Amino acid sequence: MGIKIHGIPHSGATLRVLAAAEEKELDFELVPVDLKSGAHKQQPFLSLNPFGQIPAFEDGDNKLFESRAITQYIAHTYESKGTSLIHKGKQIIDVGIWMEVEAHQFDPAASKLLWELIYKSFFGIEIDNAVVEENETKLAKVLDVYEARLATSKYLGGDSFTLADLHHLPALHNLSGTKVKHLFDERPHVSAWCKDILARPAWEKVVALLKQA
Amino acid sequence: MGIKIHGIPHSGATLRVLAAAEEKELDFELVPVDLKSGAHKQQPFLSLNPFGQIPAFEDGDNKLFESRAITQYIAHTYESKGTSLIHKGKQIIDVGIWMEVEAHQFDPAASKLLWELIYKSFFGIEIDNAVVEENETKLAKVLDVYEARLATSKYLGGDSFTLADLHHLPALHNLSGTKVKHLFDERPHVSAWCKDILARPAWEKVVALLKQA
Repeated sequence: MGIKIHGIPHSGATLRVLAAAEEKELDFELVPVDLKSGAHKQQPFLSLNPFGQIPAFEDGDNKLFESRAITQYIAHTYESKGTSLIHKGKQIIDVGIWMEVEAHQFDPAASKLLWELIYKSFFGIEIDNAVVEENETKLAKVLDVYEARLATSKYLGGDSFTLADLHHLPALHNLSGTKVKHLFDERPHVSAWCKDILARPAWEKVVALLKQA
Repeated sequence: MGIKIHGIPHSGATLRVLAAAEEKELDFELVPVDLKSGAHKQQPFLSLNPFGQIPAFEDGDNKLFESRAITQYIAHTYESKGTSLIHKGKQIIDVGIWMEVEAHQFDPAASKLLWELIYKSFFGIEIDNAVVEENETKLAKVLDVYEARLATSKYLGGDSFTLADLHHLPALHNLSGTKVKHLFDERPHVSAWCKDILARPAWEKVVALLKQA
């Protein structure tokens, strides 16, 4: 049976799941999905994710989709393996808050910037500078709050690396190659946090997969 | 000390937290936030939520923001009170998936429709019909997947009502008064699910608060 991650490393959501799997030192098979032929919008993929999006995840009989549901499954199911990503007591509250912040404050602006600054050029579509500017301003405001948080807490969820940090890795990696990199660099605590979590050995393994892709 | 919910019933995110508090039969104080005067963008509110958004939540020394982090805190902290909203084993996987579906598939389309069809008229801003049409199409596709899911499962997370259902309540309530109501009505399992969860006594208490507001 084993663990299968259906997706491709060029998908940020797939990278998020790969990061969790590498932190937990899991053996897994990365099963490529042929997006060009629309394999994700057809069976058998739709039986793994009825929304037709990558990644999808199989662990024996357990089938999951939605990247952040998968990372939480991995963290709980393989609690005793690799990096501890589950926390108790007070820290669980902060991890919960900052996972939601990633999803509802950081990701909307970051995703729009990634679409404009990376994926559009890949597809040969013209960049909309008004959208870039609007979301650069939004992301700057979000990162101001991160800067204050990270001035008093080494990681977003507390003293140790958690899923609240991990969920950011694909966007941090991809945005660091774009013109909005300065938003991270000019905030010292945000910059140190990015440098720290992007240098994690598990993430370096994920980046190696991305470079092979 | 006690529980304080800082927000107003006209905010969907506040309603989501009120729904969880009522399901758990908690005693709480609803502390109004004067959005007109911008109280949410100033201290002392910013010390509760640095993003300056309602709701914020206090339970003694525990301070939270982000509505879905608060509902999960309530469900776990008050596990033994009121409706059981925490599940074990296989169901926890499905609840995790469908909470993410609400946040990343349902909510983006639903929020844009609520903005166009309800809040804009409140502020006297003209509706953008292209945005309505685009998001009506998106929501219809999401609800097609819900219809298939609810044909084999009474609730999104399994046989019983969970946070995966509860998180939808504010949008279901508010959209039911708009022209996109037909999207729900014309899908029999979605329609039955809406009718069921909107009739929950805890939700009726929340609606009573909204009517008083």
